Amino acid sequence: MTGAVNQQERPGFEQWVVGFVDGEGCFSVPVFRQPSAKLGWQVQPEFAVVQAAPSAHVLDDLLQFFGCGRVGVNRRRDNHHHDMWRWSVRSLVDLRERIIPFFEEHPLRTAKAREFEKFSLVVRMMGERRHLTVEGLSHIAGLAETMNFRKPSRFLESSEAIRQPPQPTLR
Amino acid sequence: MTGAVNQQERPGFEQWVVGFVDGEGCFSVPVFRQPSAKLGWQVQPEFAVVQAAPSAHVLDDLLQFFGCGRVGVNRRRDNHHHDMWRWSVRSLVDLRERIIPFFEEHPLRTAKAREFEKFSLVVRMMGERRHLTVEGLSHIAGLAETMNFRKPSRFLESSEAIRQPPQPTLR
Repeated sequence: MTGAVNQQERPGFEQWVVGFVDGEGCFSVPVFRQPSAKLGWQVQPEFAVVQAAPSAHVLDDLLQFFGCGRVGVNRRRDNHHHDMWRWSVRSLVDLRERIIPFFEEHPLRTAKAREFEKFSLVVRMMGERRHLTVEGLSHIAGLAETMNFRKPSRFLESSEAIRQPPQPTLR
Repeated sequence: MTGAVNQQERPGFEQWVVGFVDGEGCFSVPVFRQPSAKLGWQVQPEFAVVQAAPSAHVLDDLLQFFGCGRVGVNRRRDNHHHDMWRWSVRSLVDLRERIIPFFEEHPLRTAKAREFEKFSLVVRMMGERRHLTVEGLSHIAGLAETMNFRKPSRFLESSEAIRQPPQPTLR
Protein backbone atom coordinates (compact mmCIF):
# COMPACT_ATOMS: atom_id res chain seq x y z
CA MET A 1 0.00 0.00 0.00
CA THR A 2 2.92 2.33 -0.70
CA GLY A 3 0.73 4.28 -3.08
CA ALA A 4 -1.82 4.92 -0.38
CA VAL A 5 0.81 6.05 2.07
CA ASN A 6 2.26 8.40 -0.49
CA GLN A 7 -1.18 9.77 -1.17
CA GLN A 8 -1.65 10.44 2.50
CA GLU A 9 1.66 12.27 2.64
CA ARG A 10 0.50 14.74 0.03
CA PRO A 11 -0.11 18.03 1.78
CA GLY A 12 -3.72 18.60 2.71
CA PHE A 13 -4.81 14.98 2.97
CA GLU A 14 -6.65 15.87 6.19
CA GLN A 15 -8.82 18.38 4.34
CA TRP A 16 -9.45 15.91 1.54
CA VAL A 17 -10.70 13.50 4.20
CA VAL A 18 -13.01 16.18 5.63
CA GLY A 19 -14.41 17.00 2.21
CA PHE A 20 -14.88 13.36 1.28
CA VAL A 21 -16.60 12.57 4.57
CA ASP A 22 -18.77 15.69 4.19
CA GLY A 23 -19.94 14.02 1.01
CA GLU A 24 -19.86 10.30 1.64
CA GLY A 25 -19.45 9.70 5.38
CA CYS A 26 -22.22 8.50 7.64
CA PHE A 27 -22.34 8.84 11.42
CA SER A 28 -25.13 6.66 12.70
CA VAL A 29 -26.46 5.49 16.06
CA PRO A 30 -28.65 2.44 15.50
CA VAL A 31 -30.52 1.30 18.60
CA PHE A 32 -31.95 -2.18 18.39
CA ARG A 33 -33.60 -4.90 20.43
CA GLN A 34 -31.04 -7.12 22.10
CA PRO A 35 -32.56 -9.37 24.78
CA SER A 36 -29.16 -10.05 26.34
CA ALA A 37 -28.45 -6.33 26.91
CA LYS A 38 -29.06 -4.94 30.38
CA LEU A 39 -32.09 -2.86 29.31
CA GLY A 40 -33.02 -5.08 26.37
CA TRP A 41 -31.64 -2.55 23.85
CA GLN A 42 -28.24 -2.23 22.24
CA VAL A 43 -26.70 1.02 21.03
CA GLN A 44 -24.13 0.56 18.25
CA PRO A 45 -22.57 3.82 17.03
CA GLU A 46 -20.90 3.42 13.68
CA PHE A 47 -18.93 5.67 11.36
CA ALA A 48 -18.91 4.39 7.78
CA VAL A 49 -18.02 5.35 4.23
CA VAL A 50 -19.33 3.40 1.25
CA GLN A 51 -17.86 3.37 -2.27
CA ALA A 52 -18.47 1.42 -5.44
CA ALA A 53 -15.66 -0.94 -6.44
CA PRO A 54 -13.83 1.42 -8.83
CA SER A 55 -13.14 3.83 -5.94
CA ALA A 56 -12.73 1.27 -3.16
CA HIS A 57 -9.00 2.04 -2.93
CA VAL A 58 -9.76 5.27 -1.09
CA LEU A 59 -11.36 3.20 1.70
CA ASP A 60 -8.00 1.49 2.21
CA ASP A 61 -6.43 4.94 2.33
CA LEU A 62 -8.90 5.94 5.06
CA LEU A 63 -8.31 2.73 7.01
CA GLN A 64 -4.58 3.34 6.89
CA PHE A 65 -4.88 7.03 7.67
CA PHE A 66 -7.05 6.50 10.76
CA GLY A 67 -5.43 3.17 11.66
CA CYS A 68 -8.75 1.57 12.57
CA GLY A 69 -11.95 0.05 11.28
CA ARG A 70 -12.35 -2.55 8.60
CA VAL A 71 -13.22 -2.72 4.93
CA GLY A 72 -15.83 -5.15 3.71
CA VAL A 73 -17.80 -5.72 0.54
CA ASN A 74 -21.43 -6.23 -0.38
CA ARG A 75 -21.41 -8.41 -3.48
CA ARG A 76 -24.15 -7.41 -5.85
CA ARG A 77 -25.68 -9.96 -8.12
CA ASP A 78 -28.47 -7.79 -9.47
CA ASN A 79 -28.14 -5.46 -12.43
CA HIS A 80 -25.89 -2.98 -10.64
CA HIS A 81 -22.51 -2.52 -12.23
CA HIS A 82 -20.34 -2.69 -9.15
CA ASP A 83 -19.97 -4.29 -5.77
CA MET A 84 -20.23 -1.78 -2.92
CA TRP A 85 -17.32 -1.54 -0.49
CA ARG A 86 -17.63 -0.15 3.00
CA TRP A 87 -15.11 1.05 5.55
CA SER A 88 -16.63 1.13 9.02
CA VAL A 89 -15.50 1.85 12.58
CA ARG A 90 -17.55 0.52 15.50
CA SER A 91 -14.99 0.13 18.28
CA LEU A 92 -15.85 2.68 20.97
CA VAL A 93 -12.16 3.07 21.77
CA ASP A 94 -11.27 3.83 18.13
CA LEU A 95 -14.23 6.18 17.75
CA ARG A 96 -13.24 8.03 20.93
CA GLU A 97 -9.50 8.12 20.39
CA ARG A 98 -9.12 8.34 16.61
CA ILE A 99 -12.26 9.34 14.73
CA ILE A 100 -13.81 11.94 17.02
CA PRO A 101 -10.60 13.87 17.83
CA PHE A 102 -9.84 14.14 14.10
CA PHE A 103 -13.17 15.76 13.27
CA GLU A 104 -12.95 17.98 16.33
CA GLU A 105 -9.64 19.27 15.03
CA HIS A 106 -10.77 19.40 11.36
CA PRO A 107 -14.44 20.41 11.39
CA LEU A 108 -16.94 19.21 8.81
CA ARG A 109 -18.50 21.99 6.73
CA THR A 110 -21.88 20.54 5.75
CA ALA A 111 -24.91 19.73 7.93
CA LYS A 112 -23.06 16.50 8.68
CA ALA A 113 -21.25 18.52 11.36
CA ARG A 114 -24.47 18.41 13.41
CA GLU A 115 -24.74 14.63 12.96
CA PHE A 116 -21.15 14.37 14.13
CA GLU A 117 -21.88 16.43 17.26
CA LYS A 118 -24.74 14.13 18.24
CA PHE A 119 -22.69 11.06 17.41
CA SER A 120 -19.82 12.34 19.49
CA LEU A 121 -22.15 13.05 22.42
CA VAL A 122 -23.54 9.50 22.27
CA VAL A 123 -20.04 8.00 22.27
CA ARG A 124 -19.12 10.17 25.25
CA MET A 125 -22.28 9.12 27.13
CA MET A 126 -21.47 5.48 26.42
CA GLY A 127 -17.97 6.02 27.80
CA GLU A 128 -19.70 7.13 30.99
CA ARG A 129 -21.89 4.01 30.78
CA ARG A 130 -25.01 6.14 30.68
CA HIS A 131 -26.56 3.94 27.97
CA LEU A 132 -27.02 1.37 30.73
CA THR A 133 -29.54 3.61 32.53
CA VAL A 134 -33.11 4.10 31.34
CA GLU A 135 -32.65 7.88 31.39
CA GLY A 136 -29.40 7.77 29.40
CA LEU A 137 -30.72 5.26 26.91
CA SER A 138 -33.85 7.37 26.33
CA HIS A 139 -31.66 10.43 25.77
CA ILE A 140 -29.56 8.51 23.24
CA ALA A 141 -32.64 7.17 21.46
CA GLY A 142 -33.98 10.72 21.28
CA LEU A 143 -30.75 11.94 19.65
CA ALA A 144 -30.65 8.98 17.26
CA GLU A 145 -34.18 9.82 16.11
CA THR A 146 -33.02 13.18 14.81
CA MET A 147 -30.01 11.84 12.87
CA ASN A 148 -29.60 11.15 9.14
CA PHE A 149 -33.08 12.33 8.18
CA ARG A 150 -34.43 9.32 10.02
CA LYS A 151 -38.20 9.25 9.79
CA PRO A 152 -39.33 10.09 13.35
CA SER A 153 -42.35 7.80 13.25
CA ARG A 154 -40.26 4.70 12.77
CA PHE A 155 -38.05 5.36 15.71
CA LEU A 156 -40.25 7.09 18.25
CA GLU A 157 -41.78 3.75 18.89
CA SER A 158 -38.48 2.37 20.15
CA SER A 159 -37.87 5.47 22.17
CA GLU A 160 -41.25 5.12 23.83
CA ALA A 161 -40.55 1.46 24.45
CA ILE A 162 -37.25 2.34 26.10
CA ARG A 163 -39.08 4.55 28.56
CA GLN A 164 -41.05 1.53 29.75
CA PRO A 165 -39.46 -0.54 32.48
CA PRO A 166 -37.61 -3.49 30.94
CA GLN A 167 -39.59 -6.69 30.70
CA PRO A 168 -38.11 -9.96 31.83
CA THR A 169 -37.06 -11.95 28.77
CA LEU A 170 -37.12 -15.69 28.18
CA ARG A 171 -33.67 -16.84 27.05
CA MET B 1 -21.28 35.87 2.38
CA THR B 2 -18.40 36.87 4.67
CA GLY B 3 -18.71 33.52 6.40
CA ALA B 4 -18.20 31.67 3.18
CA VAL B 5 -15.19 33.75 2.24
CA ASN B 6 -13.64 33.15 5.65
CA GLN B 7 -14.25 29.44 5.26
CA GLN B 8 -12.46 29.50 1.93
CA GLU B 9 -9.51 31.27 3.50
CA ARG B 10 -8.97 28.43 5.94
CA PRO B 11 -5.86 26.57 4.85
CA GLY B 12 -6.55 23.53 2.75
CA PHE B 13 -9.89 24.62 1.29
CA GLU B 14 -8.69 23.38 -2.11
CA GLN B 15 -8.25 19.85 -0.75
CA TRP B 16 -11.64 20.01 0.96
CA VAL B 17 -13.11 20.87 -2.46
CA VAL B 18 -11.33 17.89 -4.03
CA GLY B 19 -12.60 15.54 -1.33
CA PHE B 20 -16.12 16.87 -1.52
CA VAL B 21 -16.21 16.63 -5.32
CA ASP B 22 -14.72 13.11 -5.12
CA GLY B 23 -17.83 12.33 -3.09
CA GLU B 24 -20.58 14.51 -4.49
CA GLY B 25 -19.46 15.99 -7.77
CA CYS B 26 -20.70 14.88 -11.17
CA PHE B 27 -18.99 15.45 -14.50
CA SER B 28 -21.45 14.61 -17.24
CA VAL B 29 -21.66 14.89 -21.00
CA PRO B 30 -25.28 14.58 -22.03
CA VAL B 31 -25.81 14.35 -25.77
CA PHE B 32 -29.33 14.96 -26.92
CA ARG B 33 -31.45 15.50 -30.00
CA GLN B 34 -31.52 19.14 -31.01
CA PRO B 35 -32.95 19.70 -34.47
CA SER B 36 -31.47 23.19 -34.72
CA ALA B 37 -27.92 21.93 -34.10
CA LYS B 38 -25.67 21.45 -37.13
CA LEU B 39 -25.67 17.66 -36.89
CA GLY B 40 -29.03 17.40 -35.12
CA TRP B 41 -27.38 16.63 -31.77
CA GLN B 42 -26.30 18.90 -28.94
CA VAL B 43 -23.46 18.16 -26.53
CA GLN B 44 -23.85 19.89 -23.17
CA PRO B 45 -21.01 19.17 -20.72
CA GLU B 46 -21.95 20.01 -17.17
CA PHE B 47 -20.18 19.92 -13.84
CA ALA B 48 -22.62 19.79 -10.91
CA VAL B 49 -22.84 19.21 -7.18
CA VAL B 50 -26.17 18.48 -5.47
CA GLN B 51 -26.94 18.92 -1.76
CA ALA B 52 -30.05 18.74 0.39
CA ALA B 53 -31.18 22.07 1.85
CA PRO B 54 -29.40 21.79 5.23
CA SER B 55 -26.02 21.71 3.47
CA ALA B 56 -26.85 24.03 0.57
CA HIS B 57 -24.58 26.74 1.99
CA VAL B 58 -21.52 24.81 0.77
CA LEU B 59 -22.80 25.23 -2.80
CA ASP B 60 -22.58 29.00 -2.32
CA ASP B 61 -19.04 28.48 -1.05
CA LEU B 62 -18.21 26.53 -4.22
CA LEU B 63 -19.83 29.16 -6.44
CA GLN B 64 -17.78 31.88 -4.76
CA PHE B 65 -14.59 29.84 -4.74
CA PHE B 66 -14.73 29.04 -8.45
CA GLY B 67 -16.42 32.33 -9.38
CA CYS B 68 -18.78 30.68 -11.83
CA GLY B 69 -21.88 28.55 -12.28
CA ARG B 70 -25.22 28.99 -10.63
CA VAL B 71 -27.16 27.56 -7.74
CA GLY B 72 -30.75 26.42 -8.22
CA VAL B 73 -33.28 24.41 -6.29
CA ASN B 74 -35.58 21.48 -6.98
CA ARG B 75 -38.56 21.95 -4.69
CA ARG B 76 -39.82 18.64 -3.40
CA ARG B 77 -43.45 18.22 -2.54
CA ASP B 78 -43.38 14.50 -1.95
CA ASN B 79 -42.47 12.82 1.31
CA HIS B 80 -38.81 13.79 1.14
CA HIS B 81 -37.60 15.94 3.98
CA HIS B 82 -35.64 18.53 2.04
CA ASP B 83 -35.47 20.44 -1.19
CA MET B 84 -32.43 19.55 -3.26
CA TRP B 85 -30.05 22.35 -4.25
CA ARG B 86 -27.69 22.16 -7.17
CA TRP B 87 -24.63 24.15 -8.19
CA SER B 88 -23.84 23.65 -11.85
CA VAL B 89 -21.40 25.00 -14.42
CA ARG B 90 -22.19 24.67 -18.13
CA SER B 91 -20.35 27.59 -19.69
CA LEU B 92 -17.58 26.15 -21.86
CA VAL B 93 -15.39 29.14 -21.05
CA ASP B 94 -15.83 28.66 -17.29
CA LEU B 95 -15.29 24.91 -17.58
CA ARG B 96 -12.14 25.46 -19.61
CA GLU B 97 -10.70 28.36 -17.64
CA ARG B 98 -11.83 27.70 -14.08
CA ILE B 99 -13.06 24.16 -13.40
CA ILE B 100 -10.68 22.04 -15.47
CA PRO B 101 -7.44 23.84 -14.49
CA PHE B 102 -8.36 23.50 -10.81
CA PHE B 103 -8.77 19.70 -11.00
CA GLU B 104 -5.66 19.40 -13.17
CA GLU B 105 -3.72 21.15 -10.41
CA HIS B 106 -5.51 19.31 -7.56
CA PRO B 107 -6.22 15.77 -8.79
CA LEU B 108 -9.26 13.79 -7.72
CA ARG B 109 -8.45 10.56 -5.85
CA THR B 110 -11.45 8.35 -6.65
CA ALA B 111 -12.53 6.79 -9.94
CA LYS B 112 -14.10 10.19 -10.62
CA ALA B 113 -10.63 11.20 -11.84
CA ARG B 114 -11.27 9.10 -14.95
CA GLU B 115 -14.65 10.77 -15.50
CA PHE B 116 -12.90 14.11 -15.20
CA GLU B 117 -10.30 13.12 -17.82
CA LYS B 118 -13.00 12.20 -20.33
CA PHE B 119 -14.99 15.34 -19.47
CA SER B 120 -11.92 17.48 -19.93
CA LEU B 121 -11.17 15.85 -23.29
CA VAL B 122 -14.73 16.55 -24.50
CA VAL B 123 -14.48 20.21 -23.48
CA ARG B 124 -11.12 20.49 -25.28
CA MET B 125 -12.60 18.88 -28.41
CA MET B 126 -15.51 21.30 -28.29
CA GLY B 127 -13.05 24.19 -28.03
CA GLU B 128 -11.62 22.91 -31.31
CA ARG B 129 -15.19 22.70 -32.67
CA ARG B 130 -14.77 18.99 -33.32
CA HIS B 131 -18.29 18.28 -32.00
CA LEU B 132 -19.53 19.87 -35.23
CA THR B 133 -18.05 17.05 -37.32
CA VAL B 134 -19.61 13.59 -37.52
CA GLU B 135 -16.32 12.00 -36.55
CA GLY B 136 -15.80 14.27 -33.52
CA LEU B 137 -19.38 13.95 -32.38
CA SER B 138 -19.20 10.15 -32.61
CA HIS B 139 -16.01 10.19 -30.58
CA ILE B 140 -17.66 12.36 -27.92
CA ALA B 141 -20.76 10.15 -27.83
CA GLY B 142 -18.50 7.13 -27.40
CA LEU B 143 -16.78 8.77 -24.43
CA ALA B 144 -20.07 9.86 -22.91
CA GLU B 145 -21.32 6.27 -23.05
CA THR B 146 -18.59 5.16 -20.70
CA MET B 147 -19.17 7.89 -18.09
CA ASN B 148 -21.01 7.75 -14.76
CA PHE B 149 -21.87 4.05 -14.95
CA ARG B 150 -24.24 4.92 -17.77
CA LYS B 151 -25.98 1.84 -19.04
CA PRO B 152 -24.45 1.26 -22.47
CA SER B 153 -27.66 0.01 -24.04
CA ARG B 154 -29.46 3.27 -23.49
CA PHE B 155 -26.81 5.36 -25.11
CA LEU B 156 -25.36 3.19 -27.84
CA GLU B 157 -28.49 3.89 -29.76
CA SER B 158 -27.69 7.62 -29.91
CA SER B 159 -24.11 6.88 -30.77
CA GLU B 160 -25.21 4.64 -33.61
CA ALA B 161 -27.63 7.30 -34.74
CA ILE B 162 -24.88 9.90 -34.74
CA ARG B 163 -22.88 7.76 -37.12
CA GLN B 164 -25.71 7.99 -39.61
CA PRO B 165 -25.73 11.00 -41.89
CA PRO B 166 -27.97 13.73 -40.44
CA GLN B 167 -31.54 13.66 -41.64
CA PRO B 168 -33.30 16.81 -42.75
CA THR B 169 -35.63 17.92 -39.98
CA LEU B 170 -39.01 19.62 -40.18
CA ARG B 171 -38.97 22.73 -37.99
